[in-house]
Amino acid sequence: MARINDNFQKLPGSYLFSKIAHRVADYKQLNPQSKIIRMGIGDVTLPLCDAVVKAMEHATEEMAHRETFRGYGPEQGYAFLAQTILDNEYATRGVSLETDEIFISDGAKSDTGNIGDILGLDNIVAVTDPVYPVYVDTNVMAGRAGNLLENGHWSNIVYMPVTKDNGFVPELPQKRVDVIYLCFPNNPTGTTLTKAQLKKFVDYARENEALILFDAAYEAFIREKDVPHSIYEIEGAKEVAIEFRSFSKTAGFTGTRCGYTIIPKTVIAYNEKGEKVALNRLWNRRQCTKFNGTPYIVQRAAEAVYSQAGKEQVRAQVDYYMGNAKIICESLQAAGYEVFGGVNGPYVWTKTPENMNSWEFFDYLLKEKNIVATPGVGFGPSGEGYIRFSALGDRDNTIEAMKRLD
Amino acid sequence: MARINDNFQKLPGSYLFSKIAHRVADYKQLNPQSKIIRMGIGDVTLPLCDAVVKAMEHATEEMAHRETFRGYGPEQGYAFLAQTILDNEYATRGVSLETDEIFISDGAKSDTGNIGDILGLDNIVAVTDPVYPVYVDTNVMAGRAGNLLENGHWSNIVYMPVTKDNGFVPELPQKRVDVIYLCFPNNPTGTTLTKAQLKKFVDYARENEALILFDAAYEAFIREKDVPHSIYEIEGAKEVAIEFRSFSKTAGFTGTRCGYTIIPKTVIAYNEKGEKVALNRLWNRRQCTKFNGTPYIVQRAAEAVYSQAGKEQVRAQVDYYMGNAKIICESLQAAGYEVFGGVNGPYVWTKTPENMNSWEFFDYLLKEKNIVATPGVGFGPSGEGYIRFSALGDRDNTIEAMKRLD
Repeated sequence: MARINDNFQKLPGSYLFSKIAHRVADYKQLNPQSKIIRMGIGDVTLPLCDAVVKAMEHATEEMAHRETFRGYGPEQGYAFLAQTILDNEYATRGVSLETDEIFISDGAKSDTGNIGDILGLDNIVAVTDPVYPVYVDTNVMAGRAGNLLENGHWSNIVYMPVTKDNGFVPELPQKRVDVIYLCFPNNPTGTTLTKAQLKKFVDYARENEALILFDAAYEAFIREKDVPHSIYEIEGAKEVAIEFRSFSKTAGFTGTRCGYTIIPKTVIAYNEKGEKVALNRLWNRRQCTKFNGTPYIVQRAAEAVYSQAGKEQVRAQVDYYMGNAKIICESLQAAGYEVFGGVNGPYVWTKTPENMNSWEFFDYLLKEKNIVATPGVGFGPSGEGYIRFSALGDRDNTIEAMKRLD
Repeated sequence: MARINDNFQKLPGSYLFSKIAHRVADYKQLNPQSKIIRMGIGDVTLPLCDAVVKAMEHATEEMAHRETFRGYGPEQGYAFLAQTILDNEYATRGVSLETDEIFISDGAKSDTGNIGDILGLDNIVAVTDPVYPVYVDTNVMAGRAGNLLENGHWSNIVYMPVTKDNGFVPELPQKRVDVIYLCFPNNPTGTTLTKAQLKKFVDYARENEALILFDAAYEAFIREKDVPHSIYEIEGAKEVAIEFRSFSKTAGFTGTRCGYTIIPKTVIAYNEKGEKVALNRLWNRRQCTKFNGTPYIVQRAAEAVYSQAGKEQVRAQVDYYMGNAKIICESLQAAGYEVFGGVNGPYVWTKTPENMNSWEFFDYLLKEKNIVATPGVGFGPSGEGYIRFSALGDRDNTIEAMKRLD
């Protein structure tokens, strides 16, 4: 008889954002007049910038004519985009990479979700707590997580708390681990690591033959100087780290879908005989077998992000969102809240008042202020007592929401 | 230490089409003057039709304005496209489905590759031989295939030959199996099953609590009346079959990327306790966790395939390719070759002459005729002695290639 993957049955009921959507929908049904401002899910609100739109129009025109039509492209993405990304994102920071070390995709969620395909099921995985749920859930599905414990942790996953107590800087795992997920600027806390702090993880990985999966989806929001944009700015990282990036937040591509993954050919893991195997080759095989490339028009759109006009327009969008973040931080502080993040990332991580738990404060904000935020505990038990505000919304709505908190 | 998924090391060197590309590139380098006609990979050559282009232009314009901009869409795809597909592809054939039984994706390759995520690793898998390599390779990666045998089969996979001897109609597996991949109209042979022939598989699955993964990527090419377009035209299939479809060949979306997967809520498999579990819910969880939806503009483009103009234009493209198929079949027969397929599918499956093996005939065609075809043995040992011609090329090139075979 056909058998399911039983690991799926270990997953709790629903994905965090579905749960929020249901609560909001229920409230809205009972209170149809309420003007709800959504600061929950990290979706962008500004339209695609002019340079990107022009590139999409041009590419659409190409697809309309036999001479310029594009069918199957390389599964790894077109060289024109790969080279443009390497020139603009990496060479400018002194990081030298070849075009066969970058894989264009439909987004960082797919890649951070699918990367487990090339890794053994017996790896011990470490994540921060709180954490982007995809890292944990995909490991539950694969069977690496063990069982869900009463405290909300999984028995086989090693957690590295990031809380006010440690300044949101995770400590190295106390138990030896094989695979470490890091997301900085962090989702959900909006906080960052300095180069020195990140180097400790790179050194740990080199000493312990571990692999770092580094999610840099929010790097465009970095404002401060000592914050690394790429893990490859850290010496030795090219031996131990895979980096994930996305155009979703950088250029408003949440509905357009493009991201990329860097796997330097020097990044290795071990086979059952203890021999070194380059992960670049395995991921290439995975992508060639299970993926058929990102749409041509989307790749041309992403390329336009790096044109002179594109760079300026995208920078203006990022500035707009970071302007929101400043308003959120200052307003919350003025209202007596304790806030973190929001300086190098588009999320403001806020301590709940009066010992309310995350969902209590979520309900308070929804019902009393008609504001939707994301309960911190939804990202892990160490997120209890926090709530996340997204700065990726509309400016007027952001100001209006903050006024309601006065 | 970080460990790889050792199953990857069982895979033979390279994906079939990469191997072909290398052989052609090597020949081209030595013979730069040669005018090579590519009839190998099944890529389309006609540009996107006017209705699709107009829809993409319109959607691009929407993305340029704040009021009409779209960020994250539903991971399952927009309802406007889901409903349009169900109305046009299924309701018209008497198949009733709900919008939460269809999942829009970036293509059938991704979905047929990723579907294994929700299935147990101990399922016994059956495939036809020859077969689209993705079905086998993804099961090798997951660990369901066992070991590669000398004859080119995998030890744990059950093979159902489709050859001239059985009229390209697979027999039911002699050993009990749990999961059966079927692709009809078939890639690579271009042949089909009648409703009665397909019903035997549905009945088998119902009797043996097996699951059918039905790839209908080529259904738009069906010309004959008794050939089912959807497996759900067969009674009982809604309990045992998942269907995969694609706009790649239908509407020239190989570089635009859109497909969809149908999982009726009545399709079940069993958990470790022997309880029935609906696969729809598991796939929904998989997609919500590892996928972020198909680009909005691409979904609007796919929707336009079903406008009045779109239907006519896409039908004309399919007619064009089937015109090529007719030319290929007739020319090969006139030149003394034995051919199959090409009537309800865009591939012509040809017996190699004079007992040449597939790669010998490939080399002969490449070097003597400057034609690239796909060696049948690349799709499995029962493909030995055959070669596949694609009808998805340019008409003039198709005619020119066939002239060279005179």
